[in-house]
Amino acid sequence: MHIGLDVGGTNIKGILLNSNKDIVTKFRVPTKSRTNKKVLLNQIFECIDLLRQKADRIRTIGIGVASAVDFNKQKILFPPNIPALKYIYLAKEIQKKFGTKTIIDNDANCFVLGEAILGAGKDKKIVLGVTLGTGVGGGIVFDEKIYHGAEGATAEIGHMVLVYPEHGRKCGCGNKGCLEAYINDKGIKQTAKEVFGKKMNSMREFDDLAAAGDKRAIKLYKITGQYLGVALASLVNVLNPDIIVVGGGIMRAGDFILKPAKGEIKKHVISPLAKNTKVVKSKLDKHAGAIGAALLHF
Amino acid sequence: MHIGLDVGGTNIKGILLNSNKDIVTKFRVPTKSRTNKKVLLNQIFECIDLLRQKADRIRTIGIGVASAVDFNKQKILFPPNIPALKYIYLAKEIQKKFGTKTIIDNDANCFVLGEAILGAGKDKKIVLGVTLGTGVGGGIVFDEKIYHGAEGATAEIGHMVLVYPEHGRKCGCGNKGCLEAYINDKGIKQTAKEVFGKKMNSMREFDDLAAAGDKRAIKLYKITGQYLGVALASLVNVLNPDIIVVGGGIMRAGDFILKPAKGEIKKHVISPLAKNTKVVKSKLDKHAGAIGAALLHF
Repeated sequence: MHIGLDVGGTNIKGILLNSNKDIVTKFRVPTKSRTNKKVLLNQIFECIDLLRQKADRIRTIGIGVASAVDFNKQKILFPPNIPALKYIYLAKEIQKKFGTKTIIDNDANCFVLGEAILGAGKDKKIVLGVTLGTGVGGGIVFDEKIYHGAEGATAEIGHMVLVYPEHGRKCGCGNKGCLEAYINDKGIKQTAKEVFGKKMNSMREFDDLAAAGDKRAIKLYKITGQYLGVALASLVNVLNPDIIVVGGGIMRAGDFILKPAKGEIKKHVISPLAKNTKVVKSKLDKHAGAIGAALLHF
Repeated sequence: MHIGLDVGGTNIKGILLNSNKDIVTKFRVPTKSRTNKKVLLNQIFECIDLLRQKADRIRTIGIGVASAVDFNKQKILFPPNIPALKYIYLAKEIQKKFGTKTIIDNDANCFVLGEAILGAGKDKKIVLGVTLGTGVGGGIVFDEKIYHGAEGATAEIGHMVLVYPEHGRKCGCGNKGCLEAYINDKGIKQTAKEVFGKKMNSMREFDDLAAAGDKRAIKLYKITGQYLGVALASLVNVLNPDIIVVGGGIMRAGDFILKPAKGEIKKHVISPLAKNTKVVKSKLDKHAGAIGAALLHF
């Protein structure tokens, strides 16, 4: 059996996969602390113990973390929402505690691996994945393996420059023009202010309005989809993937965002062979990241 | 022995490599026709014959073509400067004529392969290459193999969107905001018009002025380097390569362009592990593409 955990600032999701990659059990619990290392580490150990009790033998453990990860060193770098884990060698700590082979990776990488092996990217050789939420993350999977580049610092799609800095919006990272500043929760709300002419508070509200045919909400998602699509077009021009899988909370808006995105891809991709690259919504549920984490050793 | 040809609109370059990857002989001849298929095909055959006469036995032939190539089908697509070769299955034609195993690929891909195996990217696992000239091309080499993506439509770096279309310059492809519109010959001349306040005709002139310390020429290359650097930063955020090799005629300007480019990479790359990604000038001479073509079978 194989354990997968997805450790985020809000929740920890856990999964147990058997060697056929079937889900044996899964759970989700609120993260007990974002800032206290001891509390959070203990909770992670408890989550693993919970899953260990459901299996005869645990062969591997995989952990996805909402953070940049130094993959070669298996070290967490700067988790913006869970500072408790900053600079921790989490795989080593877990291995010491349980004696089980453990790998950590970035949560978006795990999401894409899950989708590539068991979800919307199944049987595709080159899967590019994007997650849209508080942040914008991504992952590249070649032949069911995460692409890690030279140092594991890959698929930082949110910080591709979408708008040349002189015209660009300020991003949370301090730079101007990053994709994330346009298509994360905050960025969409900023666009909404322009579209609706007033401050709007809830992403759910946009979804409801768009579903009811509200023209401003549809326009908001069209603009957002175009932002996404221009960035995806650049990625297709470079990577020519078989499929792009888009996930994360913002994908509740589905085709309201994906249709205009596809339009931009068709326009800005130069090779006729790649103009119609498939762009689909993720297929696995909120446990995609935990599933991918459990698949890190496969 | 291994034959490599680099077929462009201006010149055809040829190379003969032995199995130790040493250059046995090389040549460069003007392209006889850009538009007449028969004339150009015959010239390509003559070039191959010339190299065959210098070797006991030719094991493989590789051809780089200044065109998008359908790599899976080994078919040339739309060569903007050598329409004579449009839609030709060039590898098949050569194989039929000489009975020697032949592969064709895009010329920028061949350039990067040459640099990755024998040039500035030697002994690096992940090499991203960019060529700056009339067009802006690129290539990605993993472990001495060209990355072809799903359909061979990869590393079309010139058509990444650098400036969001509403503010973007018109590109030769018809779209707005493509990187190529800012850093190819024509794009640099357009920027020069703004910097010098008048039309400038010769790229060589900028090089001479910059070398002599002319502030406007240095500013021109600084702006150009920043354009390049912002695009490279996006690529580093996505690919995290070990090294970036920049070649093509515009690289005569060397550090006048590369220094500001490195500054933008440092600024816009999010992972501290990748902020100092090496960016170097190509090392092989004008035959890099032909050398890479000869290495296509290795």
